[in-house]
Amino acid sequence: MTHEESILLRVQASFARQGMMQHLGARLVRVEPGLCEIALPYSEKVTQQQNGFHGGSIGAIADIAGGYAGLTVAESDMEVTSVEYKINFMAAFQGGELHATGHVVKAGRRLIVTTAEVSHVGADGKVSTCAAMQQTLMVVPKTY
Amino acid sequence: MTHEESILLRVQASFARQGMMQHLGARLVRVEPGLCEIALPYSEKVTQQQNGFHGGSIGAIADIAGGYAGLTVAESDMEVTSVEYKINFMAAFQGGELHATGHVVKAGRRLIVTTAEVSHVGADGKVSTCAAMQQTLMVVPKTY
Amino acid sequence: MTHEESILLRVQASFARQGMMQHLGARLVRVEPGLCEIALPYSEKVTQQQNGFHGGSIGAIADIAGGYAGLTVAESDMEVTSVEYKINFMAAFQGGELHATGHVVKAGRRLIVTTAEVSHVGADGKVSTCAAMQQTLMVVPKTY
Amino acid sequence: MTHEESILLRVQASFARQGMMQHLGARLVRVEPGLCEIALPYSEKVTQQQNGFHGGSIGAIADIAGGYAGLTVAESDMEVTSVEYKINFMAAFQGGELHATGHVVKAGRRLIVTTAEVSHVGADGKVSTCAAMQQTLMVVPKTY
Repeated sequence: MTHEESILLRVQASFARQGMMQHLGARLVRVEPGLCEIALPYSEKVTQQQNGFHGGSIGAIADIAGGYAGLTVAESDMEVTSVEYKINFMAAFQGGELHATGHVVKAGRRLIVTTAEVSHVGADGKVSTCAAMQQTLMVVPKTY
Repeated sequence: MTHEESILLRVQASFARQGMMQHLGARLVRVEPGLCEIALPYSEKVTQQQNGFHGGSIGAIADIAGGYAGLTVAESDMEVTSVEYKINFMAAFQGGELHATGHVVKAGRRLIVTTAEVSHVGADGKVSTCAAMQQTLMVVPKTY
Repeated sequence: MTHEESILLRVQASFARQGMMQHLGARLVRVEPGLCEIALPYSEKVTQQQNGFHGGSIGAIADIAGGYAGLTVAESDMEVTSVEYKINFMAAFQGGELHATGHVVKAGRRLIVTTAEVSHVGADGKVSTCAAMQQTLMVVPKTY
Repeated sequence: MTHEESILLRVQASFARQGMMQHLGARLVRVEPGLCEIALPYSEKVTQQQNGFHGGSIGAIADIAGGYAGLTVAESDMEVTSVEYKINFMAAFQGGELHATGHVVKAGRRLIVTTAEVSHVGADGKVSTCAAMQQTLMVVPKTY
């Protein structure tokens, strides 16, 4: 098994355990060293009061995309946990899908810094900027 | 109708329209001028890979608690929208409920700054610090 | 020497070593377990293009106030370093002094979370809200 | 005068008015539509307790680089003001120079979102990642 296959399996196994992501209908799109992309289709499970994607759903997939990008660069007996993140919401969208892509900016031994950009992909394929996140992860021993 | 009753109705009406909050099982606990408290019971709909509350669910109720705290101080023909927030996760929890309480720090004409603290309330009633958020809201004309 | 005297000396010793704080004219006002207050008088050394206090000077004293609040709760052979912070600027001021007061929100073994509020104190004694910060510190071995 | 010359003059005029930047010894390196780079040479005016660049100086030039990147895309009768920013510090450095480069991520009519990366350039020319910032600016009428 190559390193790429190994980190893909690792992220898939963790993602499948996330009840919230399963419930919201999110899916894992892409996993590469230092990168992870998550997609979230529009449904009534992810809306706010104006029927747009809920900020909570945007934040959730950005947090996860950053976190799994970080996991791809952590040692195999370690896990990552979100210390904090900051997210800017730049536009609201209905329908289509959101795609959150996380990138590792700096991988330290104890802390990892990531960013994630969230784009909206309309039913017509049009891609628009939705949100930008910056995050700090802590590297911790894997306990499950 | 008193001002307190009026802002309560306003927040209730908006909250009821949030598909995501309904689906996750969140409920409105308290609305006062400059303050809003949201509760989220533990369920498999809100878990991450270690069966704790998902960061996405913590961020979602903090964002909402801050946003509705802001809405209580906005003019009646205006709405608020989240510009951005930053959240620190301080401990992980299973079971029980999360309570997010948002407070207005500064209410400007165009922007409102809020904070929210998220606590965990265990089945035994024990209250623990879970997360802290700081948020910027923009005041916009109501469109629905 | 009491614990209170000990943490005061510790913060004073570190503060005196900060070239930037000396150059800007900042001073240590108050040190208590979990709390630190820094004052910065207005001068041409701390202005922006409209002659108000520069955001950089506001951020600097908020960062320091939070950091030293954290240092008061760290073991005596440890130091703290800023992992990150987020700051909201709520109003601009000329003249008088800024006061940044940092508070420990959560003291973990590896990470400490703090907040700081920055107030402006006018020549007439009027106190106004200036900025709010939320910060993550890392606890590291002392190396000097 | 081309648009590029016009925005350069505009940023230069504002930068020259910043007492704090003059005092710290910062200089404007590059101004392009949607981009601004600021350099800060090492001196005792910008140090913390371990003789590294002070977080306050790193935050100040990141804030300014993002703010001036935003100014380049604002209408000529408008100014920008920092609503808030979040910065991650990734490594400490002595000597050499810091370079903060701000980029516009989204230019709205009322708000502009930027990021800035801060790099350290050693005396030997070695470039290292120092910090990353994400910022919200508000567009306001110019008053001076």
